[in-house]
This record gives sequence, structure tokens and C-alpha cells, in this order.
Amino acid sequence: MTTALTARNPRCSIARSLEVLGEKWTLLVVREAFFGRTRFAEFRERLGVAPDVLADRLTTLVEAGVFARRAYREVGEREREEYVLTDHGRALLPVLAAFTQWGDEYLPTGFGPSAQYALAAPGGATVRLAFVDDSGVEVDLDDIVVVRGPGALGAAEPARP
Amino acid sequence: MTTALTARNPRCSIARSLEVLGEKWTLLVVREAFFGRTRFAEFRERLGVAPDVLADRLTTLVEAGVFARRAYREVGEREREEYVLTDHGRALLPVLAAFTQWGDEYLPTGFGPSAQYALAAPGGATVRLAFVDDSGVEVDLDDIVVVRGPGALGAAEPARP
Repeated sequence: MTTALTARNPRCSIARSLEVLGEKWTLLVVREAFFGRTRFAEFRERLGVAPDVLADRLTTLVEAGVFARRAYREVGEREREEYVLTDHGRALLPVLAAFTQWGDEYLPTGFGPSAQYALAAPGGATVRLAFVDDSGVEVDLDDIVVVRGPGALGAAEPARP
Repeated sequence: MTTALTARNPRCSIARSLEVLGEKWTLLVVREAFFGRTRFAEFRERLGVAPDVLADRLTTLVEAGVFARRAYREVGEREREEYVLTDHGRALLPVLAAFTQWGDEYLPTGFGPSAQYALAAPGGATVRLAFVDDSGVEVDLDDIVVVRGPGALGAAEPARP
């Protein structure tokens, strides 16, 4: 998918990710998937999103490989499809966690976090998102800068046919 | 700001963050700020975004405390305002990094990353975003789940007047 976002920013991974994830409701649909929802009616009920908007967002997420469609049939009902996170989709957990942490810190409700990230074990300790070095040890946010990478437009690159 | 996103999801930090950050172009404006842009004309030029849209996004980001306005005057010109990242704004680096990493991995251009996160020193080593435990040591993404926190609607909470 190419829109003005990526047309002017073709090498930017943020822009490309936003083409898939940046529309209203999309990340909340993904959030619900991490809470175990898979069915259209569940997403609609939990989020209060209009059916046509939800259908559009689910299609985008399936096309991007975030969700896979899977058939199911309740007794006495027609076959329907549900939406299951793929590995691509599960890899979005840091995106959700980044928004969660920022919202918890800078837009708090006064009730504490409504969602937490934790080790998958009964009573598993909570974890948080951070920058780490090559050896997996946390480094301070204040020490980090953004730099141009090898794929930036204008960076040295091999001639192409 | 309250829209349908937060009206139905009042305790969700992701929804609250998206009210500020979720509109088209907003995160790319923030990206440009991390690359050192501060001026309206610079944002407009770099992003190819319409001036009225850019003005709207900058206002939202100032109201949310992500940017602070700062006056400047070029020789022979009228005084203008530029937009400088606050501490709230700098705390968005993990949000950008999360989109960058996901896009680099799942929507690659074939040219490699266009932006990298690195320690702020000449030739500083690149870093990446990961979940860490209490002692700042990386834990595997596959071991992480999302759980309800104390601020979730319906969680035990003190009576309010």
C-alpha cells in the first residue's frame, strides 16, 4: 500500500509500518487480539467500533500478515472466520508496550496501568520496554540518538540496474 | 481530548496515547524532530505534508506537551516560532523505535534500515528495543503476555466520591 506517507518517505520503516497500523482503531484491534479476542463480534463489542470500519481494519491486517483467517463453526450456525495473530502480529507487542508506557507515564488516569506486560507464568514478574545493547543489557534512554542507517535515501548504495 | 477511541476505552493507555499520536503524519513529525528539525518549513519540506495538516498536528503536539514553542528571528525577518521536543517528547523514542524495528523486519525495503538507534557518541554502538526485567536484563518476546493491571475497568479499586 502506498499513500502520501510512504510516497514521500519510501525508505522510512516508521512510515511503512504506519501504512498498515496507523489508521484509527487498528492498534486497538491488535490490543484485543493480545487479550485473546479472535471474533468479529468480540472486537466490535469490546471496542465500540463501527462494523464497516472494523471489517476494513481486519482486511488490512490480514493482507499485511498480522492476522490469519481461520474458519470456525458454532453448533447450529453457519461457518464463520476468526482472526488469529501470526508471528508477524505477535511481533507487534513492543509497539503496544511503547504506547502503553508512554500513556501510563504522561497521560495517567490516576488508577494505575490498565494493562501490564509480564512473564508468561502464574504470577510472572512484570517487564518493561527499554533499549538494550548487543549483550541484552539496558541502556539509558537519555544516551540514545537516532542516526541515518545504510538504507537511508542518499546513503552509499550499490548501483542498481 | 476525548473521541470514540477513549470514550469506549477510558482506561487504556494505548487509546489515550493514540488520541495524541494516532493521526496521520503526527509520528513522522516527531521523527523529524528527533533528526533535529524544529521549524515549520523544515517539517513541511521533509514530509511533503499539507500546511494546514501540519499546523494542526503541531498544535496537538504542543497541547500534549510533546513540543514546546520557542521564538526565533532570522536577520531581516519577523519573529517566528519553532518546535522543540520536551522531555515528554523525547520519551517517545521507544514508540518510534518499535515501529522502526517492526517495519525493518516485516516490511523491508531491501536497502537495510534507514534509521538506527545508537549510543550518543561518535561511532556509538547501535541499540535495539526489547523487554527487560527488573534488573534491566532482556527477556524473550515469546515469554511475554499482556495482563490486566490495577487500573483496568472492573479491577479492585477504592470507592470514589
